[in-house]
Amino acid sequence: MSSHSVLQSEVDRLRLQLQTLQVEQGVQNISIGNYLLERLAQLGVTSMFGVPGDFNLGFLDLVEDHSKIEWVGNCNELNAAYAADGYARVKEHSIGVVTTTFGVGELSATNGIAGAFSEMVPVLHIVGTPSTVQQKAKPILHHTLGDGRYEAYRLAAAQFSIFQANLADKNTAAALIDHALTECIKLARPVYVTLPMDMVTQEISSERLKIPLSRSHPLNDHDTEKFVIDLIAERVKEAEGDVVVIVDACVIRHDVRKEVLDLLKETGFPVYATPMGKTAINEDHERYGGIYIGTVTHPDIKKKVEQAKLIISIGGLQSDFNTGNFSYKIPTLRHIELHSTHTKVQYATFAGVEMKQLLPKLGEALKSLHPLVRKFEVPLFVKALPKEDTPVISQLWFWPRLSYFFKPKDVIVTETGTSNFGILEVPLPPGSVLVSQILWGSIGWSVGSCLGAALAARDVGLNRVILFVGDGSLQLTVQEISPMIRLGLKPIIFVLNNSGYTIEKFIHGKKRKYNNIANWKWTELLNVFSEDDKPHKSYTVRTKDELSSLLDDKAFASGDKIQLVEVVMEPLDAPRALKVQTELSAKSDPYKERR
Amino acid sequence: MSSHSVLQSEVDRLRLQLQTLQVEQGVQNISIGNYLLERLAQLGVTSMFGVPGDFNLGFLDLVEDHSKIEWVGNCNELNAAYAADGYARVKEHSIGVVTTTFGVGELSATNGIAGAFSEMVPVLHIVGTPSTVQQKAKPILHHTLGDGRYEAYRLAAAQFSIFQANLADKNTAAALIDHALTECIKLARPVYVTLPMDMVTQEISSERLKIPLSRSHPLNDHDTEKFVIDLIAERVKEAEGDVVVIVDACVIRHDVRKEVLDLLKETGFPVYATPMGKTAINEDHERYGGIYIGTVTHPDIKKKVEQAKLIISIGGLQSDFNTGNFSYKIPTLRHIELHSTHTKVQYATFAGVEMKQLLPKLGEALKSLHPLVRKFEVPLFVKALPKEDTPVISQLWFWPRLSYFFKPKDVIVTETGTSNFGILEVPLPPGSVLVSQILWGSIGWSVGSCLGAALAARDVGLNRVILFVGDGSLQLTVQEISPMIRLGLKPIIFVLNNSGYTIEKFIHGKKRKYNNIANWKWTELLNVFSEDDKPHKSYTVRTKDELSSLLDDKAFASGDKIQLVEVVMEPLDAPRALKVQTELSAKSDPYKERR
Repeated sequence: MSSHSVLQSEVDRLRLQLQTLQVEQGVQNISIGNYLLERLAQLGVTSMFGVPGDFNLGFLDLVEDHSKIEWVGNCNELNAAYAADGYARVKEHSIGVVTTTFGVGELSATNGIAGAFSEMVPVLHIVGTPSTVQQKAKPILHHTLGDGRYEAYRLAAAQFSIFQANLADKNTAAALIDHALTECIKLARPVYVTLPMDMVTQEISSERLKIPLSRSHPLNDHDTEKFVIDLIAERVKEAEGDVVVIVDACVIRHDVRKEVLDLLKETGFPVYATPMGKTAINEDHERYGGIYIGTVTHPDIKKKVEQAKLIISIGGLQSDFNTGNFSYKIPTLRHIELHSTHTKVQYATFAGVEMKQLLPKLGEALKSLHPLVRKFEVPLFVKALPKEDTPVISQLWFWPRLSYFFKPKDVIVTETGTSNFGILEVPLPPGSVLVSQILWGSIGWSVGSCLGAALAARDVGLNRVILFVGDGSLQLTVQEISPMIRLGLKPIIFVLNNSGYTIEKFIHGKKRKYNNIANWKWTELLNVFSEDDKPHKSYTVRTKDELSSLLDDKAFASGDKIQLVEVVMEPLDAPRALKVQTELSAKSDPYKERR
Repeated sequence: MSSHSVLQSEVDRLRLQLQTLQVEQGVQNISIGNYLLERLAQLGVTSMFGVPGDFNLGFLDLVEDHSKIEWVGNCNELNAAYAADGYARVKEHSIGVVTTTFGVGELSATNGIAGAFSEMVPVLHIVGTPSTVQQKAKPILHHTLGDGRYEAYRLAAAQFSIFQANLADKNTAAALIDHALTECIKLARPVYVTLPMDMVTQEISSERLKIPLSRSHPLNDHDTEKFVIDLIAERVKEAEGDVVVIVDACVIRHDVRKEVLDLLKETGFPVYATPMGKTAINEDHERYGGIYIGTVTHPDIKKKVEQAKLIISIGGLQSDFNTGNFSYKIPTLRHIELHSTHTKVQYATFAGVEMKQLLPKLGEALKSLHPLVRKFEVPLFVKALPKEDTPVISQLWFWPRLSYFFKPKDVIVTETGTSNFGILEVPLPPGSVLVSQILWGSIGWSVGSCLGAALAARDVGLNRVILFVGDGSLQLTVQEISPMIRLGLKPIIFVLNNSGYTIEKFIHGKKRKYNNIANWKWTELLNVFSEDDKPHKSYTVRTKDELSSLLDDKAFASGDKIQLVEVVMEPLDAPRALKVQTELSAKSDPYKERR
């Protein structure tokens, strides 16, 4: 981001603050509900997820009548929250929005919102509530706890959102909406807004809408930032160009893809990604070497990363599954970390020096090292199909085979479980977007997320949307395929049918009944959900040849209708990365003797 | 409950307290996980609901190996919580148990647990969590918020449970389990227990298991109770026998059905029920007059209740939908209320005088009035099929027609929406159990609840389980039909297909698109979920004749397999009670002008 645009943002923010303090004397010409919708439209929101409920119906009138925002009726609120999450992940610079009703609706969404918090996804949760009069009198309305604790839901929501606002006062409603949305886009975390029924159509001034919301962080302190840049430049020089960059989750979440790409161009640094950073940089980038996950890393890549004299982590998020169970072998003395809130150089932390402003200056300061850096080669991360003699579709073969099927700008959604690990083994085409939930890891998330991702992909001109989900996970959220069909979306859904919760089996209880599930007739699903015989097609593949023929079929690959492929796999097969990961976890499994 | 058994309970409770204070020096011969399971078995728990997750797998080993408790793998956690709720409602004196995993699992269950809190249903929520070591070190594990706030989920759960216990210390684990379960059964509200992975197999003494848990309330203060009895007797005498009793939700929830029945026998009081009290007293009881819902009440019944000189409410819960939008016409001067925590006589509140102990003494004190009371007749609440000339299946005809289909000891589960209101219009056979969620009113609840109810019904020897659910509601939780099939349960599921959220349409937005839903191929559902071709059958009925023929079919009525009946109804038809209710609510609808 240029310093000019940072300054412009700062000016806008100050003007809004000023407006908040001034008594509003302008014309009261927009309803609070529509003010909120206009702000969302300004942020590029085109779809709103959720479920109707009697406390939000008046607001939904406004949504349905809005020219730019489409109401997506989800089948349930958890799925709606997942969809908002998926939408926000794919539609960068926008946010996901989910609207629910008081109590019953909002609480069903809790896990989805908490996941967005954990994974840093900007989601706005709007809850229609009883009127301001009822909020004061606290009658035993339906959807209440029966004991007058109207604040209970907000107290729960406060655990999983960075800001909560109750729009109960028309004098502060606009400022609260603006603040909530600014926090949401700036910090990439959920915010929670309650809209009492009687406030929806109350009119306020629309003056503030003329000033756009600012997403930029406060300016880095000039002197500290300069000190940090000099320090990093010194470390890089000492490393004699033997430097690697690791891109991680927050490169995507805190919107520094472009800045990172510029840095790589100027410096020539080799770059690797973590599981959560996969596709932050195109995987065909000439200096890209693959995925680093500590001990779970392929040996060649591991050596390249860990033996570099200096490692610069950008947007790092060191969770267990993102680091091979905390098995990074990167000594602090050789490590620099750039974050959205601070910078770390070796043992020193520099608070308030954030990466979005730092990165361009760093590129400038380091570009003279380019020739030195380029001497260090990067083994490219390329696809390769292993040879196997059996017809069985193994995990080892499946993912590389799929890598030949993917096209540029595909959106690939992978479920927690074998899919999240399998996809790490293969490179994805340029411009493709990987959507996965590695930190939160809530099974079933990918189905709702796929719906949101597909709507966002349509908005921003991405290619096909391809979902990989296990049979166990799909059972949690299966109904969300219905809105996909209703809305004419055309994802290709691969259902990995391995008869149960395979990832759990690898963690514990391989032969336990509780890890098995009912075997549904998967290829009948689309038919059940399809309305007015909208086009759809389903397939079952049991062998490598069957799968290959299908993938090579042009009609199938074109993705011109919603399609579901049941891929029959062995219950106790798993991707390499998952096996290594669970072996690492097993070392600390307190039930080990019972496995 | 006899005073002897109250005393015995008191003795047991004191012995447990004593054990808690004594240093445990006995043999360490049972694991904490199994201690918990033994306590559940003592409470008659035979089914445990939930979803496996890596933090609970070790505990699930113990569940799977337990001889008396069966693991019910649900499709998702919200459905599991609903199932636990349904189980507890039907299996009186036992509790519902749902086991989930840290974060992702437990938060998905939030709405189900909050519903059990609101409606006073005893549910234990067991959450498998990271080990005690990890709880101290707080690493960024999967399923965490990424910021070390391991306590966040407990803080949210505290809003919706009456007690929270973390079993992190083997010295206190047994006492905490006992306390949690005692609170759960005594107060009929959810409790929340977290079980760290490393504590599951830690051994403790089993000594405490010899002492049963006590469910009784502390003894009423003798003098206050006597004063209250005398006062009530005086009021009854003044009323010259013109007294009616209204039974409500807490008669069922706080386990005083038998006491109420004895009171009615001794006194001869006419008795009416609220929506939430329906089936608390058999509806063929000779002194039973039907349902009282304030202004929503049928005029004849309304007069009988409101013109009585004295009205005794037992276990009252005055929520909006349970009182015809707070339209009781019962002056405080003519009103006596018996509750589980206190008694109210006119304007006076008597704290600590609870109904379970009070009722038998009240019956004794009032029985001499029997002949006087019997002079007042009660118009019986009988079934009658209205004549309609059209073939269309109307709400007005449907419910009375179904009343001829119901049999003694049937369990009837009704969904929030048209079903909850429709069922009020007809009497149910003796020994039948109505399961509905009128206060919390979470759509989709009935499907999970039906699963739990069916398992409980099997345990306690009830008859068929019959579910009424709208097409809109069923879409939220549809997958929970799958475990019903897997477990060989045989509910009859009536899907009222009225093309959307009809109750919402009556509240607001009759012609709004957001109240419409996709029209699924309902009769294909069972087939998709059925494994190994377990027997099942589905039907669509579009006319009165079609439905009547089906209901009269002996094979269908025998309920020997799971069956689904799609009942096609008009989108804008609703039961009388729902229409009146929504007209009442509409008077305070802030969006009125937009309807």
